[in-house]
Amino acid sequence: MDDDATAVLAANQAFYDAFSAGDAEAMARVWSRTEPVACIHPGGPALHGRELVVESWRHILGAAEHPTVRCRGAQAHLLGDTAFVTCYEDLGGGVLVATNVFARRNGAWHLVHHQAGPAMLPSPRPARPTPDPKPPGRVLH
Amino acid sequence: MDDDATAVLAANQAFYDAFSAGDAEAMARVWSRTEPVACIHPGGPALHGRELVVESWRHILGAAEHPTVRCRGAQAHLLGDTAFVTCYEDLGGGVLVATNVFARRNGAWHLVHHQAGPAMLPSPRPARPTPDPKPPGRVLH
Repeated sequence: MDDDATAVLAANQAFYDAFSAGDAEAMARVWSRTEPVACIHPGGPALHGRELVVESWRHILGAAEHPTVRCRGAQAHLLGDTAFVTCYEDLGGGVLVATNVFARRNGAWHLVHHQAGPAMLPSPRPARPTPDPKPPGRVLH
Repeated sequence: MDDDATAVLAANQAFYDAFSAGDAEAMARVWSRTEPVACIHPGGPALHGRELVVESWRHILGAAEHPTVRCRGAQAHLLGDTAFVTCYEDLGGGVLVATNVFARRNGAWHLVHHQAGPAMLPSPRPARPTPDPKPPGRVLH
């Protein structure tokens, strides 16, 4: 893995570390201060703007029983000074699948977008080297 | 709106036009041939690589009753030669919320990533100028 992919995956892990620790300040630091940001929580609308996004995380992480999460199967896709990561979020009782988009400014990668939604798969580990091109079960598209 | 945002939203619309028309060839043209691509269909796993992604769309669009979709509330977020769009997908019987990531090469924007998942909101039009920072209803995170 090259250095850029390693750095992007470290930024991705910092997001999940802040999430699992319930650390709203660390979560705020993960998100970009220079680029337009957005966030789509599972089942929720698209939130736009750093203030709204950081506040939504403060609300989630401040809840008495905020979920712990383990990131699995993260894959980085590099596009110059932008990158996106796909990964699974193991919440214990369920698995979500997520997209995290990062932007690099002054050498540091920061989160600019997150979307997570339900995944039917219980595990990101496929039994075969490549996953089935037909999504499992019923899909809306 | 500047020219870049207009071009990104046109590429986003081309994706939904191909989708609604059930046109697998047009869908294949929407996706990048030069960058790493991925796709997360609702409830499905993360698919990686152009061949797997284009094939998944060929499967979906080839179904006897593939859904028609109307894109609503698209918002473009520009990051130089990369951009991401958030939007709602009105499928008639339900609404999804989506992230579409585009990369510009040789002046043309192509899709490099798509994720869609269920949205609780029936409409992307909030009653107030800014949406509530608290995601509606129960969220996993």
